[in-house]
Amino acid sequence: MRIGELSRRTGVSVATIKYYVREGLLPAGQLTSPNQASYEEAHVRRLRLIRAMIDVGGLSVAAVREVVAAVDDPEQPLHTMLGAAADNVVPRYEGAGDEPGDALVAARDTVTDLLARRGWLSHDDAPAREALAVAVAALENVGHGGFTEAVLDAYADAAERVAQVDVEYVAKNVAREELVESVVVGTVLGDAVFAALRRLAHIEASRRVFGIER
Amino acid sequence: MRIGELSRRTGVSVATIKYYVREGLLPAGQLTSPNQASYEEAHVRRLRLIRAMIDVGGLSVAAVREVVAAVDDPEQPLHTMLGAAADNVVPRYEGAGDEPGDALVAARDTVTDLLARRGWLSHDDAPAREALAVAVAALENVGHGGFTEAVLDAYADAAERVAQVDVEYVAKNVAREELVESVVVGTVLGDAVFAALRRLAHIEASRRVFGIER
Repeated sequence: MRIGELSRRTGVSVATIKYYVREGLLPAGQLTSPNQASYEEAHVRRLRLIRAMIDVGGLSVAAVREVVAAVDDPEQPLHTMLGAAADNVVPRYEGAGDEPGDALVAARDTVTDLLARRGWLSHDDAPAREALAVAVAALENVGHGGFTEAVLDAYADAAERVAQVDVEYVAKNVAREELVESVVVGTVLGDAVFAALRRLAHIEASRRVFGIER
Repeated sequence: MRIGELSRRTGVSVATIKYYVREGLLPAGQLTSPNQASYEEAHVRRLRLIRAMIDVGGLSVAAVREVVAAVDDPEQPLHTMLGAAADNVVPRYEGAGDEPGDALVAARDTVTDLLARRGWLSHDDAPAREALAVAVAALENVGHGGFTEAVLDAYADAAERVAQVDVEYVAKNVAREELVESVVVGTVLGDAVFAALRRLAHIEASRRVFGIER
């Protein structure tokens, strides 16, 4: 199909499609003349994946580029590739404030203790470990260190349950591109789904705890 | 304290502090001379809250401005104020792609059915309802509508559990400013904590399901 049809099918403007090709997010179409290229179904699917990561997942163009590079690299073994895809969709935080901070040092210990307590194995440099430590340190820095203590194990229980159904879903998608795609989609969109559900559950829990009728 | 000490205490540069004052995120200090202002402990705490929302929560300056406006408005009744604070930290998505789309229409029904099934009451215009529908529609648009079916109820169970401990924590913080603050902090940083835990639980679940030893 021509670029105009690709644009209509995906709702992404021609200028944006050309930008994604220049930025290496989307493979170029096959040139059929010096000024015209032809696109396939794979472009439609890839474009929708890109837009979902940007619009719903809030990923930057640079982060999307890293994720699609992992999807497109046939050299990596399966589990390494899955880990790379998952790691790339974990935001890398700068830390709250510019000082390195005792709170972050303490938060890293909190995370290590939690992992040991739950029996979760993870490599020391998994970005999610530092992401968790930064969030826990930020809670401490805004005077809500008590929140971590109050909720961390209940959150971990809930995360275990969610991760189990996530991985069961991923395990059903066997084709290589689809497997990575389902990790990315499940991670990014799964966060959005869970965050929205948590808000809706808050309304309900708040109604029950505070007795507020709407 | 002077602005230099406020900067040292919070790790936020003097230029950034002045920017936050100009943008209405932080109240101006008390002028002690035409060129000098004095700041209080409340400024330290507010600055840390602002940085946590921006650095960890990923909120825009405009979104932070709306949240602190809700915190600072003494006119609103408590439960309205809490709802406003919570609604303001729900991202408002544009939707995946530029077409309105059948997927979004169907996803709104999926959300309505879920809420009825769980017995969760929420007002029709709660931003979280639309946020959930947009995420569900995005899953459908990238060819993973099956993910929604496979995981939605397990996610809702987990969200109920998390929301219960969240609201119990909030209920303990009785001062007005602290109550709103704890909703904002718990919502924004709680998302970051849960997302990181979900990644760590993925590593563990993947190890068990795929038998990958690290």
